[in-house]
Amino acid sequence: MLDDGFHVFDTTLRDGAQREGINLTVADKLAIARLLDEFGVGFIEGGWPGANPKDTEFFQRARDELELRHARLTAFGSTRRAGVRAAEDPQVAALRDCGAPVVTLVAKSDSRHVELALRTTPDENLEMIADTVSHLRENGQRVFLDCEHFFDGYRHDPDYALEVVRTATAAGADVVVLCDTNGGMLPADITRVVTEVREATDARLGIHAQDDTGCAVANTLAAVDAGATHVQCTANGYGERVGNADLFSVTAALVLKRGRDLLPEGSLREMTRVSQAIAEIVNIAPATHQPYVGISAFAHKAGLHASAIKVDPDLYQHTDPALVGNDMRMLVSDMAGRASIELKAKELGVDLGGDRGLLGRVADRVKAMELNGYSFEAADASLELLLREELGEPVRFFEVESWRTIAEHRADGIAVTEATVKLHVKGERVIATAEGNGPVNALDRALRSAMEDVYPALAEVELSDYKVRILEGTSGTDAITRVLIGSTDGRGGWTTVGVGENVIQASWTALEQAITYGLLRQGYAQG
Amino acid sequence: MLDDGFHVFDTTLRDGAQREGINLTVADKLAIARLLDEFGVGFIEGGWPGANPKDTEFFQRARDELELRHARLTAFGSTRRAGVRAAEDPQVAALRDCGAPVVTLVAKSDSRHVELALRTTPDENLEMIADTVSHLRENGQRVFLDCEHFFDGYRHDPDYALEVVRTATAAGADVVVLCDTNGGMLPADITRVVTEVREATDARLGIHAQDDTGCAVANTLAAVDAGATHVQCTANGYGERVGNADLFSVTAALVLKRGRDLLPEGSLREMTRVSQAIAEIVNIAPATHQPYVGISAFAHKAGLHASAIKVDPDLYQHTDPALVGNDMRMLVSDMAGRASIELKAKELGVDLGGDRGLLGRVADRVKAMELNGYSFEAADASLELLLREELGEPVRFFEVESWRTIAEHRADGIAVTEATVKLHVKGERVIATAEGNGPVNALDRALRSAMEDVYPALAEVELSDYKVRILEGTSGTDAITRVLIGSTDGRGGWTTVGVGENVIQASWTALEQAITYGLLRQGYAQG
Repeated sequence: MLDDGFHVFDTTLRDGAQREGINLTVADKLAIARLLDEFGVGFIEGGWPGANPKDTEFFQRARDELELRHARLTAFGSTRRAGVRAAEDPQVAALRDCGAPVVTLVAKSDSRHVELALRTTPDENLEMIADTVSHLRENGQRVFLDCEHFFDGYRHDPDYALEVVRTATAAGADVVVLCDTNGGMLPADITRVVTEVREATDARLGIHAQDDTGCAVANTLAAVDAGATHVQCTANGYGERVGNADLFSVTAALVLKRGRDLLPEGSLREMTRVSQAIAEIVNIAPATHQPYVGISAFAHKAGLHASAIKVDPDLYQHTDPALVGNDMRMLVSDMAGRASIELKAKELGVDLGGDRGLLGRVADRVKAMELNGYSFEAADASLELLLREELGEPVRFFEVESWRTIAEHRADGIAVTEATVKLHVKGERVIATAEGNGPVNALDRALRSAMEDVYPALAEVELSDYKVRILEGTSGTDAITRVLIGSTDGRGGWTTVGVGENVIQASWTALEQAITYGLLRQGYAQG
Repeated sequence: MLDDGFHVFDTTLRDGAQREGINLTVADKLAIARLLDEFGVGFIEGGWPGANPKDTEFFQRARDELELRHARLTAFGSTRRAGVRAAEDPQVAALRDCGAPVVTLVAKSDSRHVELALRTTPDENLEMIADTVSHLRENGQRVFLDCEHFFDGYRHDPDYALEVVRTATAAGADVVVLCDTNGGMLPADITRVVTEVREATDARLGIHAQDDTGCAVANTLAAVDAGATHVQCTANGYGERVGNADLFSVTAALVLKRGRDLLPEGSLREMTRVSQAIAEIVNIAPATHQPYVGISAFAHKAGLHASAIKVDPDLYQHTDPALVGNDMRMLVSDMAGRASIELKAKELGVDLGGDRGLLGRVADRVKAMELNGYSFEAADASLELLLREELGEPVRFFEVESWRTIAEHRADGIAVTEATVKLHVKGERVIATAEGNGPVNALDRALRSAMEDVYPALAEVELSDYKVRILEGTSGTDAITRVLIGSTDGRGGWTTVGVGENVIQASWTALEQAITYGLLRQGYAQG
């Protein structure tokens, strides 16, 4: 177990799951808990036992299946109902009996919410807090108290909000968490209120910040600067509405910018992997521009930057990307010179041997192609294929003889799209036809169908994105078309680009490269 | 023009364009500039004239084509090279002669960068600043100075960083902008440094924050609290690496949380629309969880919230979403309420006669269609056709019997694309076939060819843009395609939208509407 003097408290499994589009199974929750534990958070809030069958099952299975090395499992629940004893409230009993050593209780701290939403008296609310905290403490559980709407409540009625903090502390709550439930606060508000609450009470304080103003990370850090020693976060900032404070941005700031020793040895370097693995489990595409862990977080585009980066990378990055398990990436664009091509080739694992003539040729070819509408900054796979070709090692798995695609909307209202390809694969001529939901989809299916016997692992490669952009010309569909195709094989993704006057021809180029690069990744011998 | 005492300075077109995946045409830049001006920013940084042909063309076309109501156009560039006079530096000449009334000059303020990247002496760097600022001031231009890497530089060598600020101010720079170029700062750092610079100089200060710690919005607000009166932002936070401070989050915080009177009357309510329209132009899916303007920003999932919201919505929202043109969402997924439909109809010149039943029907239909992937934000023409249909005045110039398109790459290397359409025009059945550089282009040509005798003015209508985006499926794994087609007739432009599983079918829908709307504009009687 890590030092208890400062808590990183993760609520991905409870509050994070409130994000629109997230729907976790019990197995998902267990898998995420293992990743969070490995990363090194102090507490993992698993859900609300008793509130729904899934969360109840999670706590049951967690007893047998979840071996935590760093974190303590925490159950979430509410203070008792008005007018009953905590010992007799079934919701409190579920928390008491769930097996979690720690319980986070949510309580009202805004007197308007006590009256309008809870429909009880301010005094009874205080009783509910004291009674429930005491009951769980007597059961040997540690209790954290989440003060819902604390900052709004404090603005409206500071005396009552402070009374909630004092009541919880007196009853034995270990931490009182000030929640910006509606997420409307700015850092200056947080600093002022946390400071005042610290001065007015002797409670240990925590912070829970929603991101509705885009300041959740900053609000969390402001609370820490003002004396909070417990921070609630969610992986990748998942949460209701805009989301919560992002676990990774908060811990990176505390470790790298504030020098706090929060995480197990070596864990920070796993941050990018853990972030992406959790994104995979919740089935939300990783945010490309997420601080520290996004694929663009250390990507440089301006040519000016590239030459300076060769002198000293720290001139143009705020931290070493390796520290958080990420990589610097150079975006090769028409501003690119030799320096960016060299850095890029190294990144792609292609050895150009410092050959200045070759570098110059590649840079010239990239510039010429970009002038004609290509864009390699998002198309690493196409660039790698180009680099290998310039090195005299072109990648070829099949030869194309011809292809044709037909899209039709018949008079009877039926729409059909089909494609036929004629290829030479490992010396054999193959003809295949497939239907699709558009010309490119039909071509993609026909291409796979033609090659699946020879390259069965092609089944793992799939197209994940398709973008078409018309580049300015004199008139719309006469202009040059740029097609970007995103592909994935479950272990990673790559992007290819095709350009041409004919959108299907451009799509075909990107498609042919997408499949070629996929086969290269699968390790097939060329034919 | 708005009050000059506090600047909102937008750099979407310059720094925002550094975002990975953004590649703007001159027409895109002009369209974004119009939206930013309408929103009410004080300054629009258009690019770097002379640095590349696109930016040079932008400033040329802006003189004739860009009528700004609120904003002043700003050119970006660098201080002169070492060892030449500003008057003789062609890069400075391009700034001087570009026609923009304001120039933002980037200068080094970190002595390490002066030596390692610029490869000159600290004194010469100060000379370069003084000389370039004076030269442009003598030309009657207003000058803002961007101090690149100011915060890193100030940490390393505060005296030199301050000397840069004083030199620029003495030479006539109106604002000295402190840039967190590498984005590594936290709000507390910004507060301290801005306060110290204010005390040590008499410069008017601005802030430019990159989002690498996830704190760009908070850092910007921290600088304002510490006395900065010029804030640099980009629409939707687009920018290099993680991005820049988001224009919309920053202005919403300043207006709604700090009570500043920054924007033209009624403009804040257009925020969500403007944000989404810009996302459409740059062809990046709007960020669903963006503060204030994201489709999830006021979406409530927790059942607990729903009942409280029925009592009083303000219990569970930090601000009224209508103030920023967004909507609370509970059950339906939509952006359009009656009010926005009514405003939009008025803008399109369609009189709905304040008919609440009709407004409700249109809002419901728009909601249902947006749920299925339509987006009317950038497709005014499609919305107008829909409004006219709901008014009982559908627009029809032709009836479609069937269409077919074939794209082929033959074994002899020749690529051919052709299309055939069968229509009924003014009672006559017409069949026409045409070739094109892609299926949609061929369909477009066949469609025109079938109608040119009856509607000769169709020759003036042409397609100017074609955008395809794959949307995640609403049900199952089937992806849905959204196509946006831009059209022009020399007097103005319009956009139509088509959605469907089949990209050609979706394109056809948008194409049919594009031509229909064009004929409507030409004043033809329907048949």
